[in-house]
Amino acid sequence: MAGNSFGQAFRVTTAGESHGPGNVVIVDGCPPGLELSVEDLLVDLDRRKPGQSKIVTQRKESDTPEILAGVFEGRTTGTSIAILVRNEDQRSRDYSDIADLYRPGHADFTFDAKYGVRDYRGGGRSSARETVARVAAGVIAKKLIARAFGGEVLSYVVQVGDLVAQVDPDTVTLDAIERLPDGSPNITRCPDPAVSAQMVELIQAVRKDQDSIGGVAEVVARGVPAGLGEPAFGKLKADLGAALFSLPAVLGVEYGVGFGAARMRGSENNDTFVREGDVTRTRTNRHGGMLGGISSGMPIVLRAVVKPTSSLSREQETVRRDGTSATIATRGRHDPCLLPRFAPMAEAMVAIVLADHWLRHQGQTRAF
Amino acid sequence: MAGNSFGQAFRVTTAGESHGPGNVVIVDGCPPGLELSVEDLLVDLDRRKPGQSKIVTQRKESDTPEILAGVFEGRTTGTSIAILVRNEDQRSRDYSDIADLYRPGHADFTFDAKYGVRDYRGGGRSSARETVARVAAGVIAKKLIARAFGGEVLSYVVQVGDLVAQVDPDTVTLDAIERLPDGSPNITRCPDPAVSAQMVELIQAVRKDQDSIGGVAEVVARGVPAGLGEPAFGKLKADLGAALFSLPAVLGVEYGVGFGAARMRGSENNDTFVREGDVTRTRTNRHGGMLGGISSGMPIVLRAVVKPTSSLSREQETVRRDGTSATIATRGRHDPCLLPRFAPMAEAMVAIVLADHWLRHQGQTRAF
Amino acid sequence: MAGNSFGQAFRVTTAGESHGPGNVVIVDGCPPGLELSVEDLLVDLDRRKPGQSKIVTQRKESDTPEILAGVFEGRTTGTSIAILVRNEDQRSRDYSDIADLYRPGHADFTFDAKYGVRDYRGGGRSSARETVARVAAGVIAKKLIARAFGGEVLSYVVQVGDLVAQVDPDTVTLDAIERLPDGSPNITRCPDPAVSAQMVELIQAVRKDQDSIGGVAEVVARGVPAGLGEPAFGKLKADLGAALFSLPAVLGVEYGVGFGAARMRGSENNDTFVREGDVTRTRTNRHGGMLGGISSGMPIVLRAVVKPTSSLSREQETVRRDGTSATIATRGRHDPCLLPRFAPMAEAMVAIVLADHWLRHQGQTRAF
Amino acid sequence: MAGNSFGQAFRVTTAGESHGPGNVVIVDGCPPGLELSVEDLLVDLDRRKPGQSKIVTQRKESDTPEILAGVFEGRTTGTSIAILVRNEDQRSRDYSDIADLYRPGHADFTFDAKYGVRDYRGGGRSSARETVARVAAGVIAKKLIARAFGGEVLSYVVQVGDLVAQVDPDTVTLDAIERLPDGSPNITRCPDPAVSAQMVELIQAVRKDQDSIGGVAEVVARGVPAGLGEPAFGKLKADLGAALFSLPAVLGVEYGVGFGAARMRGSENNDTFVREGDVTRTRTNRHGGMLGGISSGMPIVLRAVVKPTSSLSREQETVRRDGTSATIATRGRHDPCLLPRFAPMAEAMVAIVLADHWLRHQGQTRAF
Repeated sequence: MAGNSFGQAFRVTTAGESHGPGNVVIVDGCPPGLELSVEDLLVDLDRRKPGQSKIVTQRKESDTPEILAGVFEGRTTGTSIAILVRNEDQRSRDYSDIADLYRPGHADFTFDAKYGVRDYRGGGRSSARETVARVAAGVIAKKLIARAFGGEVLSYVVQVGDLVAQVDPDTVTLDAIERLPDGSPNITRCPDPAVSAQMVELIQAVRKDQDSIGGVAEVVARGVPAGLGEPAFGKLKADLGAALFSLPAVLGVEYGVGFGAARMRGSENNDTFVREGDVTRTRTNRHGGMLGGISSGMPIVLRAVVKPTSSLSREQETVRRDGTSATIATRGRHDPCLLPRFAPMAEAMVAIVLADHWLRHQGQTRAF
Repeated sequence: MAGNSFGQAFRVTTAGESHGPGNVVIVDGCPPGLELSVEDLLVDLDRRKPGQSKIVTQRKESDTPEILAGVFEGRTTGTSIAILVRNEDQRSRDYSDIADLYRPGHADFTFDAKYGVRDYRGGGRSSARETVARVAAGVIAKKLIARAFGGEVLSYVVQVGDLVAQVDPDTVTLDAIERLPDGSPNITRCPDPAVSAQMVELIQAVRKDQDSIGGVAEVVARGVPAGLGEPAFGKLKADLGAALFSLPAVLGVEYGVGFGAARMRGSENNDTFVREGDVTRTRTNRHGGMLGGISSGMPIVLRAVVKPTSSLSREQETVRRDGTSATIATRGRHDPCLLPRFAPMAEAMVAIVLADHWLRHQGQTRAF
Repeated sequence: MAGNSFGQAFRVTTAGESHGPGNVVIVDGCPPGLELSVEDLLVDLDRRKPGQSKIVTQRKESDTPEILAGVFEGRTTGTSIAILVRNEDQRSRDYSDIADLYRPGHADFTFDAKYGVRDYRGGGRSSARETVARVAAGVIAKKLIARAFGGEVLSYVVQVGDLVAQVDPDTVTLDAIERLPDGSPNITRCPDPAVSAQMVELIQAVRKDQDSIGGVAEVVARGVPAGLGEPAFGKLKADLGAALFSLPAVLGVEYGVGFGAARMRGSENNDTFVREGDVTRTRTNRHGGMLGGISSGMPIVLRAVVKPTSSLSREQETVRRDGTSATIATRGRHDPCLLPRFAPMAEAMVAIVLADHWLRHQGQTRAF
Repeated sequence: MAGNSFGQAFRVTTAGESHGPGNVVIVDGCPPGLELSVEDLLVDLDRRKPGQSKIVTQRKESDTPEILAGVFEGRTTGTSIAILVRNEDQRSRDYSDIADLYRPGHADFTFDAKYGVRDYRGGGRSSARETVARVAAGVIAKKLIARAFGGEVLSYVVQVGDLVAQVDPDTVTLDAIERLPDGSPNITRCPDPAVSAQMVELIQAVRKDQDSIGGVAEVVARGVPAGLGEPAFGKLKADLGAALFSLPAVLGVEYGVGFGAARMRGSENNDTFVREGDVTRTRTNRHGGMLGGISSGMPIVLRAVVKPTSSLSREQETVRRDGTSATIATRGRHDPCLLPRFAPMAEAMVAIVLADHWLRHQGQTRAF
């Protein structure tokens, strides 16, 4: 119905398919006066784009955005902002071999069940290609929260297969996510260099095996003031949950101690309030920065599990639209592990939620 | 801003506090002609209400609903439905001892940070008391999906502390959730009788220890046709995630293999499509009933982790509004484990999402 | 679908029928800290209620509201506010004579066409009785805009039949609307005493004639700062238009010179900007306080035409649900002219729009 | 906040300025399977575009749309549709002379008051240029309602200055709106040829006089089934009112007898129900096709008054941003009368509302 919009006060609406002319985003509600340029957008679009390293898809897209509206003389005007990212790598090929096949793990079957028709070229609207529009919107959201309250959102990989990294969300830096100690690109986006190196090996082994592998990304939002989020349905954790679950391949989301809370007692889990100067905070942060669904002023820490890529170059059984049996092997150019490119998508979605709730909060509670 | 509404086509709006006059829900968009009575509402309100067993809070509320609008001659009219559940057990006591204290794990501090004021009686709007309005709306949603597509939503407890039950979501029944094999009430709502008995012991031991304990509830929705949910932000999993995260004390949500996917390979995780008669389905259901965020026709299986109750009768350190140190021990009448009463709340939220998406789906795709 | 809600940041949701238990409103998004009492609500509920004078319906309703949620210690908390106004005058009578009849000018036929069923008692949800919930919400909106920017909304009758009053929207007072110069109630709410007296006579003559009569109400909003409203669809005039058109019996809305603009030239119609001290304003106010759909700081002046009451005690031809011909004469207790009781409804709707847009404006443009 | 979206089930979101790169629209919620091509879009874009006759602005825009998303193999897919119309006639000129001036009747002052900044080139977002995006969306809506229920929306000019045409909304045709009896273009879009000829003369005289002139457009929607629209706030008339008021320069909207109802008695105004075959309808259509805010099955007839163009080539007094006095004469290329190009805009907005309400109606009432 209206499933292609997200947010209330900072409202993001997208359109676009994998192999159509391009992806578009309209951002409504952004305050006036925010500096915004194509260069700003490129920072995260480049982190998201395919072909950036040997462990991601080799599809080539320059992902150059065009700002169509809402920016004048380098600043947002307060009216709706539109950004277009054209698709370039639309190899002219014959899709008839997959047009009638349901790829396991993909949305081919469910799209057909829903609409009776689908753009089968590369997954159409169900392709992760659509996240390019979200990442563009996320850049605006990041700039907004940086200016509004010095907020920062970072996402990084903490698990691939059995490899689990140790990362401190309070201190991790963008630089540690993007670069190894020697200055070379950290292509996994796991800021634990030793584990990152193992992950590279694992991902390459998996790809060689014509297979794929899952993992977990963590997101931390720092500098978020206490008071964002609303009671009942509008809880910050509910909107953050929806934000991350709306990303392709996400099968689970948790914050703070997350699923670990099942085994805990209240006396172990509660964080004690303490006073530091004129600020009330908690001594520990098992609550992940939200209490009653409202931010507490402590870092917000979330994790999302991302399934192994469904496209495999090995042969899989499936059925055709007409119900007959078939086998399928997806040819080339898919990510053997989605996690490295997932980080900027997760950052974008979390930043959008924070921008939205901050504007909502200003509107209601700074009124008089 | 508008955080007290949920859903688009089946839209639920609530108001109410723990110790105010009552809780109200307005349901907008329900189709006309659905049978609805106070008795219908009582089924789930009774499952949610306090005082129903020895392992839940002993607070007494009859939770008798009044249908104020939208029902005529026993059926919904298609106009907005309003239901009021009055609060009864408003013990007249002095709250001045807690009015200025921030209870650890509760929303006292974050409400103050947000609004500068709060109804401190029993948590006010942040109390789980507000879920009484959701459960009433959930009854309507359940009736809608039952009539529309024979849909059924069940929730049950699968873990408390270290005790983990084995339950088959494809075959579990409401009766197994509510009753033990001997016909007596299954007060944990864990449909694995042996584990349920252990859970009762654990919860009682925890309470005796002036402590509380966390756990995990599972929710299964059966009979859901393929095609519900929308691409991009409107994914069914995103709205289900928001629905469960909007409930108090939920720290994590997963579906299908969930966080287990981190360790899996694509070849292990993908479910193979098969044809049975004229229906396309998957041989296994690791995908938890949703692909690309759209229902696949397989059972939808979700899990939510619920933290241990924050209120403890043992003493905890904290601070006052003015920042001075204090200790707090919550007197009486809280649940030592939230899980048993969580099940009907989870069912309600999942049913509301399914009702909403089914109406949205009809509107868009059955148009011509 | 979700037609029973109005507004974005100040969001009003209602339910209730003419002869059901009562009417309910939930107001979401109101800032915390606003004083609100039953007495505040009664001011406008009394102006709206039936039976207040000899020229309105003699149906008796005390219209005593109950605040169910969202107010604590006399002030709003920032969470959703719920108010219930019970119906009292539900004369126990037999409706079978009208259950199958389509009253001319009423919504009986269209409700049946839409829903296949309707609550036929007194019009059910289509009765103007539902405006009691709007007026309650309007009181909150009025208090909000008064505190936020000293805003004031007044509505009054400027035409009944051929009788046209001269009223200056810049200077008219609530007192002049409610009281005649001698202090007695101004039962028409036309603040031109001579014309008001003629209107009383006309309305009484019309009633005697078993007929009804239409008219025009004007609404002025003063003190509204420049800058409320948004480009494109969110224009202030669009939301004000929807607000007034959503009221029963309204067939037209205009602002500023309104339909008179059809005969004007640009050089006659444009208002010249002038500077007074450090304020930019216009010398004249033909633009009715909005330019480009955004408030200009000048008084906002709107007019709505209200059709003659459809219920007539004289006999009218019609058909039954089954298509057979019939005649109908509505027995007793309807307003011969809707205008006197329309004024508080119009004020409520305009105040709600201004409260909504003011919160939206704060949220977006006072961000940094 | 989120003012650049319109509709619930058929949701239109726009962005774009007069002199930026282009205007974009995203349409969300359109059913799958609707044929849509650039040629379809051009029909109405050409009717809206500048430079089409001697009585409209001579600005040149080819207004060629590009479909960026949501259409595959010539049909809508059910996912969001994006259309881009680039701006071409961006004469490179110096705007410094008007950047600091407030043009009388325009939104320059109110945009500055709201945002503190504005794109002053040609009015930026406040320019009627933005309606190009609406007209594109309107084409989709028209196709939807034509296929769904054979619905048709036509708008035409019924008044310019003192010249009033007689047009029968039940029988008027697109051909009569677009062509004179001799086959030549009917450049006023008034389907009364004699009055149309007078209007051409009047508009030319007004232009020669460096002035502009107002008028009234009528819109008729035929074939609309009974049952569209919702009680309370979601009335069809409320959404139609908002739709027309959201268009630039509209100062008033009425339907049916409109403002004429002020002088009428109920016995004159009520339309009698009659039975024709198995259809219930009204003998007359003073109610303009809506009763209780829900469509009755009779033609929906609305009128909107459009003010004289604010831009005048004669000199007008005004002030600058800094408050100093100034004079302004708008150079060239504005419409001396907005009505001829207003017709397609009005059709688009009315069609969008009907498409939206029809989808909403299906969703709720065709559920079971």
